Amino acid sequence: MKWSELSEAPCSVARSVAVIGDRWTLMLLRDCFLGVRRFEDFERRLGISRSIVAGRLKRLTDEGVLRREAYQDRPLRHEYRLTEKGLALHPVLMAIVHWGDAYYAGEAGPPLLHRHRTCGCDFQPVTTCSECGGPVTARDVEVRPGPGVG
Amino acid sequence: MKWSELSEAPCSVARSVAVIGDRWTLMLLRDCFLGVRRFEDFERRLGISRSIVAGRLKRLTDEGVLRREAYQDRPLRHEYRLTEKGLALHPVLMAIVHWGDAYYAGEAGPPLLHRHRTCGCDFQPVTTCSECGGPVTARDVEVRPGPGVG
Repeated sequence: MKWSELSEAPCSVARSVAVIGDRWTLMLLRDCFLGVRRFEDFERRLGISRSIVAGRLKRLTDEGVLRREAYQDRPLRHEYRLTEKGLALHPVLMAIVHWGDAYYAGEAGPPLLHRHRTCGCDFQPVTTCSECGGPVTARDVEVRPGPGVG
Repeated sequence: MKWSELSEAPCSVARSVAVIGDRWTLMLLRDCFLGVRRFEDFERRLGISRSIVAGRLKRLTDEGVLRREAYQDRPLRHEYRLTEKGLALHPVLMAIVHWGDAYYAGEAGPPLLHRHRTCGCDFQPVTTCSECGGPVTARDVEVRPGPGVG
């Protein structure tokens, strides 16, 4: 399979990975969730070339994950903000953070803490079932073909 | 920043992304969670070169996400199984599936359904707070420096 064919595959992982499954894209999305919005800030934080940043931001904008918005007229300047579709990636980023905290944090502990505004506590994300509310782990999930299996 | 420096960054996303933030690695992990274990099966399902499959499987094995286990003596053959550290990536994959189902499923619906054995229902993953059990969205999370900020 060619990389360009991934987005056509009848698999929701493949379709998502075709959009976000790239190291720098995931790092840009991390920064978006930390409130970064401007091209120069993405570039500076990641320390990578302008063309990599530009390409990734364009792809995310084309896919509707980010929207480009003018924040200044003269000269015209834009910033990048997460759309609803982009905000819907939060569980992906939280799950990645949590795994990194669990296995790569080192002795000092996690570099960042996440506070749940609703209860005021620092928390870890827990994946639960939309139907019964109980915890979901790899061992209690059964996969079967759905209507869009193709 | 060079890609090779990502794993040293004081950021749990960066450290995780250094291990799993690659399109084919994510696709291999998808297959692992679907029960695929053998080299030839990964290769056939993804339709990519042996060297890409071999490189990604080696990296995941070196990181302790997969373990290599002999399943046949003559000739000696191995299969790849998720370790506990690998199984702990399940929330990442579930979150990616869920986003793909929500935004890329097409009219027919999702290609795969996920059944929660505990309650018997097809479900969607919901990210909740380890402390209060309530739902967590991007809007109710506040990030602050942790002990390992460096």
